[in-house]
Amino acid sequence: MTDTAFQAWMGDVQARMEAVLARLLPAAHVAPTRLHEAMRYAALGAGKRVRPLLAFAAGEVTRAEAPRLEIAAAAVELIHAYSLVHDDLPCMDNDVLRRGKPTVHVEYDEPTALLVGDALQTLAFQLVAEHRLADEPREQLEMVKLLALAAGSRGMAGGQSIDLEATGKQLALPELELMHIHKTGALIRAAVLIGAACGHPLGAHQQAGLDRYAKSVGLAFQVVDDLLDYEGNTATLGKTAGKDSKQGKPTYVSAVGVAGTRELAEELRREAHAALAGVGERGARLASLADFVVLRKF
Amino acid sequence: MTDTAFQAWMGDVQARMEAVLARLLPAAHVAPTRLHEAMRYAALGAGKRVRPLLAFAAGEVTRAEAPRLEIAAAAVELIHAYSLVHDDLPCMDNDVLRRGKPTVHVEYDEPTALLVGDALQTLAFQLVAEHRLADEPREQLEMVKLLALAAGSRGMAGGQSIDLEATGKQLALPELELMHIHKTGALIRAAVLIGAACGHPLGAHQQAGLDRYAKSVGLAFQVVDDLLDYEGNTATLGKTAGKDSKQGKPTYVSAVGVAGTRELAEELRREAHAALAGVGERGARLASLADFVVLRKF
Repeated sequence: MTDTAFQAWMGDVQARMEAVLARLLPAAHVAPTRLHEAMRYAALGAGKRVRPLLAFAAGEVTRAEAPRLEIAAAAVELIHAYSLVHDDLPCMDNDVLRRGKPTVHVEYDEPTALLVGDALQTLAFQLVAEHRLADEPREQLEMVKLLALAAGSRGMAGGQSIDLEATGKQLALPELELMHIHKTGALIRAAVLIGAACGHPLGAHQQAGLDRYAKSVGLAFQVVDDLLDYEGNTATLGKTAGKDSKQGKPTYVSAVGVAGTRELAEELRREAHAALAGVGERGARLASLADFVVLRKF
Repeated sequence: MTDTAFQAWMGDVQARMEAVLARLLPAAHVAPTRLHEAMRYAALGAGKRVRPLLAFAAGEVTRAEAPRLEIAAAAVELIHAYSLVHDDLPCMDNDVLRRGKPTVHVEYDEPTALLVGDALQTLAFQLVAEHRLADEPREQLEMVKLLALAAGSRGMAGGQSIDLEATGKQLALPELELMHIHKTGALIRAAVLIGAACGHPLGAHQQAGLDRYAKSVGLAFQVVDDLLDYEGNTATLGKTAGKDSKQGKPTYVSAVGVAGTRELAEELRREAHAALAGVGERGARLASLADFVVLRKF
């Protein structure tokens, strides 16, 4: 796939997701208006929409219909948005900038930000339950479960907890990996698997390949995030740069150095490509997304 | 039903729920251990288990099987437990005592309490998705949706937001009612409807009666809570007494006085009983629960 075609596709999915989320989030004039306005503030505008892109690309593998993918991608993105709002709170990372805007507790207030995160999470599950995303309701219940496992204490929230305990410590590579498999990897994996589940079932071999791909990309995403946080500047990132090391958080850069981190990212990119071998032509976008995740500058 | 029989039934459901939640919550030795330990701390021990009691009693109306009711009741109770943990946080009610124990952020720390609430909510949805609660998966997806609507921005979380904006103001009765229908009523209603949905479908007339019952009991619960908060002492309540008025929150007592609040509670109790008229014998426990909710002293 040419770079231009891929860029156009990305722009299309991103614009589509903005419209979809704007439609699915409660309107700002619906009571309680302050909460709904703040939920929209948190979830709309900017955002790379990496998880929706992955869901749409995975949906191409299984020939899933766009209306289903829109809902599935929105649900995953809302879980991601909720986690950002809560992570930014003063008792967590205490961050003031996100996606180039003041964070929710800065723009509104702390209790509102707490409720925004809570309600965005709930909305994600509501969406998966109330729209038709699979031919069989049984398969759709599996999606709810997949999303819950990815978001909960043995997934994303668990990764946050490991992160809390690790602050101020230097972790070895395997421990660092365990933290990020939970913190970022689980939800990215869910984006791929739920996107694929919107379409026709895959054979066991292809499904396993897709899962391996998702795990590699999920980890690569965090590895590159650490690099960007180390090298980056706040304007390009749209969030505070260098905050991880400032907060004493263990990172790949502190564990294996800049060169080692770059090498690791490359290795994960190769693994992601290799995992798609059995998927065939329809995996082209997923392959391009693996490149995008590793080569991105923001 | 005799008082003794009803008391025994309540004790039985409460003990059963403790065991069920202990089984369904991740074990404290499973990583991340601190998060899992704190989740168990938040959800186990004490608690009146009003929502599980309502779910079980509603399940009697539709002859639902106990294993299904256990899961449904646990899911609703976990949503309730999550909301308590987040409500108690310093940026919200800043409370130090809950169910006779230090609140989660006091016993652990604030970021852990944030994650505990987040992960308890997720677990609730996981439970409804992964256990068989209805004959048809389609009905079960309806349960996920019902729970999400009750918990989200147009339910419980929305009620919290209305509450935030109302602090320091004196609300008129209709506004107060709107706040509590969201804040407490929505989840209590969900407990009744999800409990009933575990069994055989009701006719439209009976279903409507059950819904009216649930709404009356949900509101009665909050009305009585305001009375107890006004009259109570901290030891009996297991949480800080008198905090609502101290925090400048509008209450029924401040809106219509003590006598008026008592009268309102009685009226709602009569409405709850009347709503059960079409349900017949199988609604006996629900009727007793309406009495319990209104006449309780803690």
